[in-house]
Amino acid sequence: MTVSSFHPPSRMLMGPGPSDIHSRVLQALGRPVIGHLDPEFILMMDEIKGLLHYAFQTTNQMTLPVSAPGSAGMESCFVNLVEPGDTVIVCINGVFGGRMVENVERCGATAIKVEDDWGTPVDLNKLADAIQGNPGAKAVAFVHAETSTGVQSDAAAISKLAQDAGMLTIMDAVTSLGGSPVLIDEWNIDACYSGTQKCLSCVPGISPVTFSDRALDVIRGRNHKVQSWFLDMNLIMGYWSSEGSTRSYHHTAPVNTLYALHESLVMLKDEGVENAWKRHQRHHEALKAGLNALGLNLLVDEAYRLPQLNTVTVPEGVDEAMVRRRMLSDFGIEIGAGLGALAGKVWRIGLMGQSSSPRHVTLCLAALEGVLTDLGAPTGDGGASDAAQKVLLS
Amino acid sequence: MTVSSFHPPSRMLMGPGPSDIHSRVLQALGRPVIGHLDPEFILMMDEIKGLLHYAFQTTNQMTLPVSAPGSAGMESCFVNLVEPGDTVIVCINGVFGGRMVENVERCGATAIKVEDDWGTPVDLNKLADAIQGNPGAKAVAFVHAETSTGVQSDAAAISKLAQDAGMLTIMDAVTSLGGSPVLIDEWNIDACYSGTQKCLSCVPGISPVTFSDRALDVIRGRNHKVQSWFLDMNLIMGYWSSEGSTRSYHHTAPVNTLYALHESLVMLKDEGVENAWKRHQRHHEALKAGLNALGLNLLVDEAYRLPQLNTVTVPEGVDEAMVRRRMLSDFGIEIGAGLGALAGKVWRIGLMGQSSSPRHVTLCLAALEGVLTDLGAPTGDGGASDAAQKVLLS
Repeated sequence: MTVSSFHPPSRMLMGPGPSDIHSRVLQALGRPVIGHLDPEFILMMDEIKGLLHYAFQTTNQMTLPVSAPGSAGMESCFVNLVEPGDTVIVCINGVFGGRMVENVERCGATAIKVEDDWGTPVDLNKLADAIQGNPGAKAVAFVHAETSTGVQSDAAAISKLAQDAGMLTIMDAVTSLGGSPVLIDEWNIDACYSGTQKCLSCVPGISPVTFSDRALDVIRGRNHKVQSWFLDMNLIMGYWSSEGSTRSYHHTAPVNTLYALHESLVMLKDEGVENAWKRHQRHHEALKAGLNALGLNLLVDEAYRLPQLNTVTVPEGVDEAMVRRRMLSDFGIEIGAGLGALAGKVWRIGLMGQSSSPRHVTLCLAALEGVLTDLGAPTGDGGASDAAQKVLLS
Repeated sequence: MTVSSFHPPSRMLMGPGPSDIHSRVLQALGRPVIGHLDPEFILMMDEIKGLLHYAFQTTNQMTLPVSAPGSAGMESCFVNLVEPGDTVIVCINGVFGGRMVENVERCGATAIKVEDDWGTPVDLNKLADAIQGNPGAKAVAFVHAETSTGVQSDAAAISKLAQDAGMLTIMDAVTSLGGSPVLIDEWNIDACYSGTQKCLSCVPGISPVTFSDRALDVIRGRNHKVQSWFLDMNLIMGYWSSEGSTRSYHHTAPVNTLYALHESLVMLKDEGVENAWKRHQRHHEALKAGLNALGLNLLVDEAYRLPQLNTVTVPEGVDEAMVRRRMLSDFGIEIGAGLGALAGKVWRIGLMGQSSSPRHVTLCLAALEGVLTDLGAPTGDGGASDAAQKVLLS
């Protein structure tokens, strides 16, 4: 087998992540590696912690990037907070709620499921009933922004229900962080994990997490060791703690990926997180106008729709996979397929981070209109990118 | 807090990893991200599998990089193969054997420890006794190349003892892969994990692993689900399996880090793995000649010394931390401290991957001689870099 260097094709990433990455972040990524105990690296780690405090809107001491993808960030929350015999109430309205149940059960705990239809948010009444019916539950786990459906749930209200019953909250903010408000302290969230390859527009592979002091007390007071050595926060804090000179080796940090995270967080700080939220909302409005012109419908009601992830219902008779293939082959544009219960029924168009721009919205709409027309599919009144321009330039 | 872009200081990495990275690999790392389900990315994943077969000298179907550091690679071997109630014989002759015990116990299994002094290899007689005394043990776990001591153990002999007793073998090859022979198939190793930031000279953050068909049968026949959802090989294979079009999403792959791994493996293939082993041995000989000239001793007997990781005994009365600090501040050279039982007693000088070069050996010796002289420490006959040249240019 002869193998040559790999040169990726030119793409515009508008799926559920990864999103396009700014050249500043790619340049940071490609800088020479230094040691994970180098004094200058440790100063940079402290800056990352401070920048994550800003992104998460928290002062939680235990705020750091787990050295593995969002799925491991999720697992870090469950294995640290949940012990064998515990009960956890899990809200399920898409793929990632289901994954939370897997995590709870693999900790030897019991998951009480609160299930809602895919495409709808967590039903607060159903959750309140589950909390009342399970007063001994340790935590309520939910997905703030369901990447599989494009739905946002009411994190503040969910957290209040849990807190009033003395339960911890565990929140998935993989797709929301940096794209729509994530207010850890204001909402009293006890454990939250996110991803880097969505609205932060960094490379995939690490997962920012934050734990409240209440969660820390639970972790310190455990009866059993955390079942994962790699994700044991008691040990990880020995490396990420603030006393620079006393840092102890746990594992070799993903040095270059942390350079990239640092740069993407500096860019978020420079833009201002509120401005980033507004930008994601504005480009969503423009995309929506264009989709409307094409007669295409969004799956999710406006009241709980995520601006950064737009789930578009595939019209009757249209070959959804062919549309995605043509978008990729003819224009180099990646849009996402449906997952799980929505496979084959929707497209997922991401407008995340650097991919939330006038350029992305305009080109995606023009390409989609062209491909649908070429395949003989209905395109409503047409003029999708013109409709978007009216919003973008208003 | 105002935070600016981070620019790493100029370093020459000669500790226990990460090692210096070639510009080809850094350039690959910094290329634009594409989707983890992009058809071209999937072709690249297949190439990585083929290149890892070559690096590990195996035909094992389940050979892939875990999306997290070597510690998670270790954990992936234990959580997939070990179930609650199992017994595992663990050979301990340094930090990483101890970490294996943590892994076994966190799986709800019992670890039978075979302990040897730090700086010596696994004692085959002691291991044989432990195997005889625990005929029901499921596996024997050992560290091929102990990064904390610089010792190489006899993997072929250890594996034969285990196999003759019908036990699986789990091997840590984090520091050996690419630097000294790792012959998975010839040695009949059932599960092996490695790192990328040592002799492969790639960025830290992912961990190549390989499982034999015998190990696969054990994983498929488990009584309990794997306790880690993120590291469950049954699920990971759904994404890394060879049928390109049927790949299922498990987690978002660390796309850019995989570009870098691909490039570092292409470079290993181009050099030839046997040539890489010879290169590591040659530069070790040169370093040894220079250390001898300075009157410095290597901790580990020649018969089981790792060429890529040289553990140097700190002479009586020398402030070892000050020597490391001066090497870093005056020359930008990172050498490693002792870990665990060897903390304060040794330096660890890595000659791994791109850091195994005439340039690294020569400059490190000259700098070390200069720093020791400046601190008033004994330096034997001196002329360390001259002594190295004689080997390098012979």
